Amino acid sequence: MGRSTSSMQLTRAADYAVRVMVHLAKQPAAERALLPTLAHATGAPESFLSKVLQGLCRAGFIQSRRGQAGGFEIQPAGRTASMRQVIEAIDGPIFLNVCMMSGNSCNRKNFCPAHPVWVRAQEAMIGVLNSSTVADLAAQTLVPQAQIARAK
Amino acid sequence: MGRSTSSMQLTRAADYAVRVMVHLAKQPAAERALLPTLAHATGAPESFLSKVLQGLCRAGFIQSRRGQAGGFEIQPAGRTASMRQVIEAIDGPIFLNVCMMSGNSCNRKNFCPAHPVWVRAQEAMIGVLNSSTVADLAAQTLVPQAQIARAK
Repeated sequence: MGRSTSSMQLTRAADYAVRVMVHLAKQPAAERALLPTLAHATGAPESFLSKVLQGLCRAGFIQSRRGQAGGFEIQPAGRTASMRQVIEAIDGPIFLNVCMMSGNSCNRKNFCPAHPVWVRAQEAMIGVLNSSTVADLAAQTLVPQAQIARAK
Repeated sequence: MGRSTSSMQLTRAADYAVRVMVHLAKQPAAERALLPTLAHATGAPESFLSKVLQGLCRAGFIQSRRGQAGGFEIQPAGRTASMRQVIEAIDGPIFLNVCMMSGNSCNRKNFCPAHPVWVRAQEAMIGVLNSSTVADLAAQTLVPQAQIARAK
């Protein structure tokens, strides 16, 4: 009940996942990045980021290569992934309220006047997170750099 | 990182707060409800609900009276409170991501392409939660009962 409760908040893991995906999408094609570089770029502790990267590998959004010229590389499915997909790869499905989890049938659903509001609030939020892909975000960061290059 | 992480999820306390506010708003004017009645109506454990009720009292949304005919009673500010206000009275301000907390300045804010998306996603969700008041929700629940009464 304290003010420290984090309600409706993205986990740090999912936040770092978005950061690292955008960073990898900005790399030149087929270039790989090592864990320390990614930790520096995202501001995440290496050991924590390592678990996030494992989750992104499992989702097929990135690949990890060993040996010389090894490191993490973005995959096509990672470029086209939406922010929602990146978040859900790490945190599992987004549900604003427990009553909205599939398989978790709330016995108040039929008469609860709040239920449709939770549904609408979740749809509004997810709609925004669906509409931005990793590639979109990476392109947006590049805009200022391109402008600087053109201005020179 | 496990699938049990609850990302962007309302706390149980805030969920019960909305339930209890709607229940109290449906009571006849100046009628008071006792803790066991409210616990039964909301499906919340009494000890847990008691803390939620304290938070709602502090916010000025309900009042607790002692003695005979004592109990919890909704206040005018409670009827006009939005779902967002009820949630925030219990959980504190809603922030989809830590970088959006006031006073918590993220040093990536100026170049982070994800930041504006978090802002838009939060605004979309909060817009919905702002638009429904406790009185609105209570009125919606009453509709079926009124229809039954008319049909008799």
